[in-house]
Amino acid sequence: MLFFNTAYSQQSSPYDEEEIAEKVDSVMQKMTLTDKVGEMTQLSIDMISEGQPYNLDEPHQLSDEKLKEVLVENRVGSILNVGGHAYTAEHWREIIRKIQEVAMNEKPTGIPVIYGIDTIHGANYTLGSTLFPQQIAIAATWDPQFAYRGAEVGAYETRASYIPWAFSPVLDIGRDARWPRLWETFGEDVHLAKQMGAAMVEGYQGEDAGGPYHVAATMKHFLGYSLPITGKDRTQAWIPERQLREYVLPTFKAAVESGALTVMINSGEMNGIPVHTNKDILTGLLRDELGFEGIAVSDWEDIIYLQSRHKVAKTYKEAIELAVNAGVDMSMVPLDLQFPKLLKELVEEGRVSMDRIDEAVRRILTVKFKLNLFDTPYYDEGMYDKFGSEEFAKDSYDAAVEAVTLLKNNNDILPLSKDSRILVTGPNAHSLTALNGGWSRTWQGTDPQYDTEGKPTVLEALRSRMGESSVSYVEGTSIDSVINIDEAVTAAGNNDVAVVVVGESPYTEKPGDLTDLWLPEAQRNLVEAIAETGTPVIMVLVEGRPRIVSDIEPKTEAVLMGYLPGDEGGNAIADILLGDANPSGKLPITYPRYPNDLVTYDHNYTDQIDPFFGTNAFNPQWEFGHGLSYTTFEYSNMQIESSEFDAAGQTTVSVDVTNTGEHSGKEVVQLYASDLVASITPAVKRLRKFEKIQLDAGETKTVTFTLMPEDLAFVGRDNEWITEAGEFALHIGPLSETIVYKY
Amino acid sequence: MLFFNTAYSQQSSPYDEEEIAEKVDSVMQKMTLTDKVGEMTQLSIDMISEGQPYNLDEPHQLSDEKLKEVLVENRVGSILNVGGHAYTAEHWREIIRKIQEVAMNEKPTGIPVIYGIDTIHGANYTLGSTLFPQQIAIAATWDPQFAYRGAEVGAYETRASYIPWAFSPVLDIGRDARWPRLWETFGEDVHLAKQMGAAMVEGYQGEDAGGPYHVAATMKHFLGYSLPITGKDRTQAWIPERQLREYVLPTFKAAVESGALTVMINSGEMNGIPVHTNKDILTGLLRDELGFEGIAVSDWEDIIYLQSRHKVAKTYKEAIELAVNAGVDMSMVPLDLQFPKLLKELVEEGRVSMDRIDEAVRRILTVKFKLNLFDTPYYDEGMYDKFGSEEFAKDSYDAAVEAVTLLKNNNDILPLSKDSRILVTGPNAHSLTALNGGWSRTWQGTDPQYDTEGKPTVLEALRSRMGESSVSYVEGTSIDSVINIDEAVTAAGNNDVAVVVVGESPYTEKPGDLTDLWLPEAQRNLVEAIAETGTPVIMVLVEGRPRIVSDIEPKTEAVLMGYLPGDEGGNAIADILLGDANPSGKLPITYPRYPNDLVTYDHNYTDQIDPFFGTNAFNPQWEFGHGLSYTTFEYSNMQIESSEFDAAGQTTVSVDVTNTGEHSGKEVVQLYASDLVASITPAVKRLRKFEKIQLDAGETKTVTFTLMPEDLAFVGRDNEWITEAGEFALHIGPLSETIVYKY
Repeated sequence: MLFFNTAYSQQSSPYDEEEIAEKVDSVMQKMTLTDKVGEMTQLSIDMISEGQPYNLDEPHQLSDEKLKEVLVENRVGSILNVGGHAYTAEHWREIIRKIQEVAMNEKPTGIPVIYGIDTIHGANYTLGSTLFPQQIAIAATWDPQFAYRGAEVGAYETRASYIPWAFSPVLDIGRDARWPRLWETFGEDVHLAKQMGAAMVEGYQGEDAGGPYHVAATMKHFLGYSLPITGKDRTQAWIPERQLREYVLPTFKAAVESGALTVMINSGEMNGIPVHTNKDILTGLLRDELGFEGIAVSDWEDIIYLQSRHKVAKTYKEAIELAVNAGVDMSMVPLDLQFPKLLKELVEEGRVSMDRIDEAVRRILTVKFKLNLFDTPYYDEGMYDKFGSEEFAKDSYDAAVEAVTLLKNNNDILPLSKDSRILVTGPNAHSLTALNGGWSRTWQGTDPQYDTEGKPTVLEALRSRMGESSVSYVEGTSIDSVINIDEAVTAAGNNDVAVVVVGESPYTEKPGDLTDLWLPEAQRNLVEAIAETGTPVIMVLVEGRPRIVSDIEPKTEAVLMGYLPGDEGGNAIADILLGDANPSGKLPITYPRYPNDLVTYDHNYTDQIDPFFGTNAFNPQWEFGHGLSYTTFEYSNMQIESSEFDAAGQTTVSVDVTNTGEHSGKEVVQLYASDLVASITPAVKRLRKFEKIQLDAGETKTVTFTLMPEDLAFVGRDNEWITEAGEFALHIGPLSETIVYKY
Repeated sequence: MLFFNTAYSQQSSPYDEEEIAEKVDSVMQKMTLTDKVGEMTQLSIDMISEGQPYNLDEPHQLSDEKLKEVLVENRVGSILNVGGHAYTAEHWREIIRKIQEVAMNEKPTGIPVIYGIDTIHGANYTLGSTLFPQQIAIAATWDPQFAYRGAEVGAYETRASYIPWAFSPVLDIGRDARWPRLWETFGEDVHLAKQMGAAMVEGYQGEDAGGPYHVAATMKHFLGYSLPITGKDRTQAWIPERQLREYVLPTFKAAVESGALTVMINSGEMNGIPVHTNKDILTGLLRDELGFEGIAVSDWEDIIYLQSRHKVAKTYKEAIELAVNAGVDMSMVPLDLQFPKLLKELVEEGRVSMDRIDEAVRRILTVKFKLNLFDTPYYDEGMYDKFGSEEFAKDSYDAAVEAVTLLKNNNDILPLSKDSRILVTGPNAHSLTALNGGWSRTWQGTDPQYDTEGKPTVLEALRSRMGESSVSYVEGTSIDSVINIDEAVTAAGNNDVAVVVVGESPYTEKPGDLTDLWLPEAQRNLVEAIAETGTPVIMVLVEGRPRIVSDIEPKTEAVLMGYLPGDEGGNAIADILLGDANPSGKLPITYPRYPNDLVTYDHNYTDQIDPFFGTNAFNPQWEFGHGLSYTTFEYSNMQIESSEFDAAGQTTVSVDVTNTGEHSGKEVVQLYASDLVASITPAVKRLRKFEKIQLDAGETKTVTFTLMPEDLAFVGRDNEWITEAGEFALHIGPLSETIVYKY
């Protein structure tokens, strides 16, 4: 699936697959065991920099002595990460140039280093790069071109920093609002996430990841990472094989088919087994079944954690034995030099086979050749004139504006008139870090000193459009505490409308674990206090996961979900509030109403039984797929080409969509199927097809979906995908039709 | 395991196993297919009563016409349930006498009916019976004799009502505070629940379930019922086989070994498969592996629900085919006569084999013989003079007083002086239904018109002990709404202390589903408002599951957990508040601090990683096993007999416990083991042994536990139980020692 043929996708790797295999063999013939275990070692930049790990000297500089120790003496094949905060592109180039010089000129094998980095929503560790909306917001666009394009720009700017490997995308399914990495996913639906994930891999890698504008993508995190039973990051998940194949595996399978070059392993444990030690998953499923041939890299310190956290190994050495034998090719060690030494001992003692080592090294070298690192470890810096350009910023803006989701709009209070007097308040009203979330210039994304220059907060964007005097601002609260709600209340009385921007501060990984999904009380008190003045409240949510707002939502007139829209989020939200853009985002998750009522849209019929056996008990705040527009759309004329089809056939489903309002706008046409009877309890409905279309006011378009048998499939009792004969109800908007599938 | 040899456990069934087998064969030879499918049918009493199902005539009476239709024409072999509310023992006797007369005299086969009922915490559907604490409270006693004795009394009073079959105990593990049936379980620990469950089976069945004072027990609900992913009753659970064997199966295995005669099937679906259709579970696991030979009965309408809710069958007939072939012996239909007709058709069409029918009927008849129903369908009513006796009430009181758990007691504010002036307030202060919970006289347990005569509420019990004038009462709030908090605040100012009895109203099964674990706001406001007066607050929790109180707990001086302590709960709580009894209950669950922080005590080390990688992130309100006393206990002199042992051996662990306070009291000595390294990520600790002991002030006792290899086992990667060689830390109270297990 390729969305664009841009100028950036040029063919650049000089070798075909066969040539690469020959070259790898040739390199390997000259490698000693020390060379090989070094290739399997990935260390942090901290290990080659002046200063101490987690406490590097400022300004950052490489250490010649450590470079020699790491690259030459220990033959380390990969470096990752950033020392504390983002660097300039110039500094990155200096770093990589130096690393490759030492690796290729001073190391006996001359093998280049593969540098990997958490390019997550753009080259976020390079100052001045383009920050896109985070994945959950990209999913809300319901248009995979934004996933593709965001990755493409991220790849360009990462390669512009001379780095050829992005630890992205997250392909874990986002089905639990408690999980702190929900915002890094494409949400709860398998079909949507699969399309988005594949597009993102293709955007990163282009047609040839070895070119000057592409990088290797990383499928994260194989496998079962996102569904711990308690919702806490890096804790135990219980996932039966059927559910694993139904909900967890498809995004990875699609990404493998899209050619992803590397995979990162789930730090957690699934069914009692740390995935880093699970050969059934890392070899049986990933290699033998999916046919993946790239690099499997551990996550941060995860082999060490097998001993210290998971307690499945007595010693670090035993942990390495377990992990490498299970299928880990490269250890993100990343802060000591024990790994290659101990791995060498394990080989010498016969506890890890030479075949296993050769297999891992072959995969690593193959990717290095595919990235063209042997011939061109970095391209000319003059090739990157679009870095941080207006063109890229526009791409980020386009994604953000299509992500922002209008959840509620009583009496069409939005868009606001530009003549309004507006109070802007709330902890996220004047924060660029809040709009970007984690993985933004720093790991946690919380330090505003690295904010991209010139990118406006919501407040600034509104003021630039309406003038300073029309937009007053009172902070109101921090995320957790009251600051000056009284002042906000007073100011509300002097304005026509209050835009209250609430939500979360940035967090990344485990620090984002929470204990209560309710939006913090201080923020709810702010919304309530302002609502009580009678000034209409427009609530804007800037948050990585759906925080509960059911007590305050009825007191608002409109609700706009911003997710984590990135550096252009202020502009996008302001343009939508003021009607310069028409919202078209749709929720990629179910927005819950209560903290202990977390049910996905594709639940089973049993989840709908009311406590008193009456109406539907499924009662979220807003449903998956929900999102309003400033115009209106009508669905009509749903047509099924053939209401019966069989395994050899297919059918098409078409519908007419008319823009019946007064503005042009985009609509996401969503086709859901309900399997009426199945051998596995079927979901009430599942998204099977979608398409986002543009309609001018009054315009009608016919959208046609082709349904293949596999579009109605599920994982059956034998853990194989199956399409069962029988009736299926198809739903598009308010319309439904029934079709019959026959064997 | 038998705790008592009481007078009630007399041998009464006239036949041994071999004789029963012969008798069953002989009966079966005369049975037609119609007779057989009738035997497999269980209908509600509504189907043989005057009036309409769910709307029977009052007062209740059987319908001669329907009796004939059901028992004679349709050969129905089992009746269950109660028509809306409890009956007198006399009425029950009349009902059963009539049923057995028709069945045995008018039905061609003359096979007696087996009547089953939800005897849950006593013969709760017989008016005047003894209501015990609910299972979660029994678990809090940490003394299986109460499980045994409660069941024994329940059996006595059920048989006194001429009913030979109790649908109890619940053996589902209670590891999710959201699940509405948590209070029906023995809590979250497998070892504790296993001991309690086996004792309860033995209490029901005695040495011979066919005697006049015992009944058949029912293991509920096979299998995997209590762990739905959303916490909602009767929805999908995801349970991998390893976790199933580790956490879910052991209680059932122990109960099978204790001779349980029947099992009821999980209404829910596990891993996508409704358990009522899962042959691997109902035949492979239950029969072939556990060797269970009794009756497997469906839950209420569950075969119908395979079509209407689970959507795995196109028709009711297909649902019957799936269920019976999977291993369901008897269908709790229970409100129509289609089941036997359709099942007969299925046999005639070859879709259900005659062997399968014969197998089911043989099991049913065998249990009927074991219950001695053929010879003595009911015993003489004169044999039941202890029904509702003081002796039984004392047993219930003893259990309640050992269940109530003192969670907090700042500055020894408890026990209260009898000279105190006390304000009693809160929605559960003056409610007997609240103390009893669900399954009390009615299904939902909410109707006070059936309250047992003479049983005091907490308020009444305090007044009877202290005098009316010392105890003032203001309701304060209902469960969900403010009534008169202001009055309670005023009254608090006039009293020395406020006893605020908060919690939940009764609920049973799905109507107990909730969306937010926080204690309702009105009740938290009541506690807070009273605390603000400066009058010390004693918070008493009367609730079926731990509702979150973390915001108000710091404002209280003492907290007493009452669970659902039954008819003697008022007396027990009052005696503990006033020091006439010394609390010795211990939490059988982890009491959570926040609604999205639900972690059991036997979590893994990864659950302890703090968001910022500092201190332990496991932070419940109160831990499993916690409970204070009015005296103090010291642990010393922990001794390991042999610090190394192997598969052929065992070791003993002993500890001295001294009552260092001024009151006699009971202490639960708890032995936990931590597997320091294991091939499956080990829990931080697991309860492996416990013993409750009585100590006078100043007294020391030595408690000795014998540890066998299986006491350190877990379910390994191949889903088999294994004890792995290695180090284990053993913990008793504040003491720890390490032992080594060798192969």
